[in-house]
Amino acid sequence: MRTTPFLRNVKASGPTISSALRERVRRPAYLSKLTTADELAPLFKACFTGVGYPKTVPTAIANHIEAGNLQADPATKKKFNLFVGASVGPEVEDRWAKMDMIARRYPHQVGKEISKGINAGRIAFHDKHLSMFPQDLTYGYYSLHKKHGDPKKPLDWAVIEATAITEEGFIVPGASVGATPEIIQSAERIIIEVNTHIPSLEGLHDINQSFSPPNRLPYIITHPQDRIGSTSIPIDPDRVVAIVESRAPDNTGQNAPENDESRAIAKHLIEFLSDEVSAGRLPKSLLPLQSGIGNVANSIIGGLADGPFDQVQVWTEVLQDTFLRFFDSGKLAFATATSIRFSPEGFEQFYANWATYKDRLLLRSQQVANSPEIIRRLGVIAMNTPLEVDIYAHANSTNALGSRMLNGIGGSADFLRNAKLSIMHTPSSRPTKTDPTGISCIVPFASHIDQTEHDLDVIVTEQGLADVRGLSPCERAPIVIENCAYLDYKDILHGYYDRSLHECLARGAGHEPHMLRNAFKFHTNFLEHGTMKFKAWEK
Amino acid sequence: MRTTPFLRNVKASGPTISSALRERVRRPAYLSKLTTADELAPLFKACFTGVGYPKTVPTAIANHIEAGNLQADPATKKKFNLFVGASVGPEVEDRWAKMDMIARRYPHQVGKEISKGINAGRIAFHDKHLSMFPQDLTYGYYSLHKKHGDPKKPLDWAVIEATAITEEGFIVPGASVGATPEIIQSAERIIIEVNTHIPSLEGLHDINQSFSPPNRLPYIITHPQDRIGSTSIPIDPDRVVAIVESRAPDNTGQNAPENDESRAIAKHLIEFLSDEVSAGRLPKSLLPLQSGIGNVANSIIGGLADGPFDQVQVWTEVLQDTFLRFFDSGKLAFATATSIRFSPEGFEQFYANWATYKDRLLLRSQQVANSPEIIRRLGVIAMNTPLEVDIYAHANSTNALGSRMLNGIGGSADFLRNAKLSIMHTPSSRPTKTDPTGISCIVPFASHIDQTEHDLDVIVTEQGLADVRGLSPCERAPIVIENCAYLDYKDILHGYYDRSLHECLARGAGHEPHMLRNAFKFHTNFLEHGTMKFKAWEK
Repeated sequence: MRTTPFLRNVKASGPTISSALRERVRRPAYLSKLTTADELAPLFKACFTGVGYPKTVPTAIANHIEAGNLQADPATKKKFNLFVGASVGPEVEDRWAKMDMIARRYPHQVGKEISKGINAGRIAFHDKHLSMFPQDLTYGYYSLHKKHGDPKKPLDWAVIEATAITEEGFIVPGASVGATPEIIQSAERIIIEVNTHIPSLEGLHDINQSFSPPNRLPYIITHPQDRIGSTSIPIDPDRVVAIVESRAPDNTGQNAPENDESRAIAKHLIEFLSDEVSAGRLPKSLLPLQSGIGNVANSIIGGLADGPFDQVQVWTEVLQDTFLRFFDSGKLAFATATSIRFSPEGFEQFYANWATYKDRLLLRSQQVANSPEIIRRLGVIAMNTPLEVDIYAHANSTNALGSRMLNGIGGSADFLRNAKLSIMHTPSSRPTKTDPTGISCIVPFASHIDQTEHDLDVIVTEQGLADVRGLSPCERAPIVIENCAYLDYKDILHGYYDRSLHECLARGAGHEPHMLRNAFKFHTNFLEHGTMKFKAWEK
Repeated sequence: MRTTPFLRNVKASGPTISSALRERVRRPAYLSKLTTADELAPLFKACFTGVGYPKTVPTAIANHIEAGNLQADPATKKKFNLFVGASVGPEVEDRWAKMDMIARRYPHQVGKEISKGINAGRIAFHDKHLSMFPQDLTYGYYSLHKKHGDPKKPLDWAVIEATAITEEGFIVPGASVGATPEIIQSAERIIIEVNTHIPSLEGLHDINQSFSPPNRLPYIITHPQDRIGSTSIPIDPDRVVAIVESRAPDNTGQNAPENDESRAIAKHLIEFLSDEVSAGRLPKSLLPLQSGIGNVANSIIGGLADGPFDQVQVWTEVLQDTFLRFFDSGKLAFATATSIRFSPEGFEQFYANWATYKDRLLLRSQQVANSPEIIRRLGVIAMNTPLEVDIYAHANSTNALGSRMLNGIGGSADFLRNAKLSIMHTPSSRPTKTDPTGISCIVPFASHIDQTEHDLDVIVTEQGLADVRGLSPCERAPIVIENCAYLDYKDILHGYYDRSLHECLARGAGHEPHMLRNAFKFHTNFLEHGTMKFKAWEK
């Protein structure tokens, strides 16, 4: 073990070892590194920190800074570069953002305060495909301008959660794997939070080593249940500088409730999938499903639990409560993801029935769960919600009105680019302050494009479904408008397409007709008048 | 062999068998199916036809239609759905397009007349990632609305080129593989053009079987020279309805000549790659290169032939003449692609020195050459030319002014999404009729988006290079403008960014600042005034 000033400081004041902790930590040498989050907190200077859903240390750091009122004075103010894999609770994201403790944030985030900080220009947010973030981190792409520390270690610190530690000192993660393996690999110093509140999840994970080119190997996975790794994350024990006991549960909220709209969307989709089975383009058990989060996703998975398909498999990013219902229906054979984000009641049910679920579930790193290689090979059916889709089937997944970041692209493009069936589902309209249908989710030109026309197969709203496979742009537009747009917007959208076609054909540019001067009229109208509705196209 | 009316017709009038042909066709039973292109031509009705660079039959079909003046009368007019893999000569594309013989076209095209037909609305063009086209064809996604024929066979006809036929009746392709394996797999009837003008290229190809989910296997390729298949394309001999002898060379033009601009771009890029090697982020032999076509690509490959890197490997789509120079320099160890498109002199050199090149070269199907799985695993360095890039690093690869199709996305997004280094290179400006720098290739908002901000690492023009790895949008924009834009456009672009930032921060939407009402002002100004230059931003 390296002796750093940091470590001597910690070792002087070790807490007593609980019996729960002794049971979970099977490498006794680690217990000599036991400390408390409060003792660690003052040691964090502005730095590059990677986190794998820890709960206690980040809270202690915020407490320490708040108690000392450190942010008030530029001389003591601390700002961190925060690298998170799949998910992190609001106790990190939102509190840190509100206290202006985040300088940079990679690669996806959820929370009101953090998105406020990003959109206020206080937090530099780099929005990256989840499959790529871990590899780009290990490549050193996020530390190109870092001047201090070991150049081979992009992160100063990793703070990660374990539900157990093996004899070798390896980490058994909790309900999220995400980028934890690569964060550990990239960090000079590692702090482990051993969570004794939740059960040891040993056996639930499949962790493979992450290689860099030119020495990479194929992922030998041809079925969602295939294992290619081990049940714990390898770690260099010399880099573990401290362990902390944590008793905090995953801080999750309720899943988004279904409504008539989301059920209508699910109904269209399940009909479509049934037709694909009838036509022989899908097997009767479908192909592995990816489903995003939100109420439409919940309605779809709920619909499948009552639906005609048996022995269904899931290859996805995040599992929500409805998957428990899907398992319980007997129709879901196997599911794999990088993270579980049940509601508190969902987690209760899951832990209470651990024996029932554990052999039908596997958590992997996000580099594997979102890997284009495997998504394409398995022929995944991908389903995600955009902010808006345009008439030619480009989609905006990230920036409202082109500029205001919501959560980031996440894994949507990993899946939609590579799936056998790439499906986007959205309500046809959304409410504004003054108009319950003031935002059309079908627009002439998406104000930000994350998914291209080359990627999407099917668009579905509560109005209906547009199957755009094999169609040219001029064939797509009328179908997307007619089948998917909210009634109030159909005429104006048809008008946009007709005029654009006329103008573009006149100058021999009719492949994908646009009137660029009017392309964002829906959006500018909303900015000026609080609704996307207007009467007619000007010249 | 099935006896169709078609076949009886053909068999009645077989031509004599040349000794060259007898040598190439090692399955004697095929020789009984020998006919001439002219005899086949009248038999083609409007149909779904897949082609793997044949030369003789498509010309004969056009001759037949022209001779009979069939296109003049709606009752005799013929229009075909044309599915082509990697490349096809102007004798098919342009002549057929000019004669209005093409109803639909998948998935990429090159030629003035065909793009004119697409932009005039006469040809429905579906623009698809090259890696996906073959699989989507076999999935039946392009024949969803086809009413006739075998539903398991999306294509009525395949017309393909062979340079030899094995004892089993399998096909040894010519200088293009592309989607030929899947086109053969998808066709009810197959016509083989045996090209006796060019040498048998037996041994040059690596052909693997194409599976559908859920029964797909990993591609066990960890180095560009790895082989996973056989040297010929398997075929069901019963579906071969005719063979034809062809003596036509690949109809290629000259490669685009280098100029000062392309050499300046290559210089910036080679410096960047050298710096990456120094920083330890790339090995000294680099990683496998993908290079697009055009004069910048030629300058880069030419620069590498004189450059500091040894034992370089290439994993790309198309090989052009400069690769011969690269081989001859001794610095290129191995190259693999889906197609060779040398100039006529290049082909001469290649065939004359076949023994020198053949063990350092491999041609694969486009599904493999463009596979995200392998591109990501190998850590390819991808380099492509866009039409325009915007200040936040979205790129337009396909549609001028958002609407006029040039060639299609090809494999650019297969590579740029998955490469370890994703590089786009372009001159900073292009000429219009009235202004030699009237088009800026750096714009506020790309008028069509094929590559997203989540995909690109480096933008380079003759002005300089912008390394945007790990940067937020607000960090990217000033660097892209300052390093890459043409001088005349810098101020107006900075002005766009500054005003957008100001406006968007004011409404808490400052992640990726835009003034949507002005986002396409460069483009609308060009449409009105023939140049993208203007004095100042209006309100």
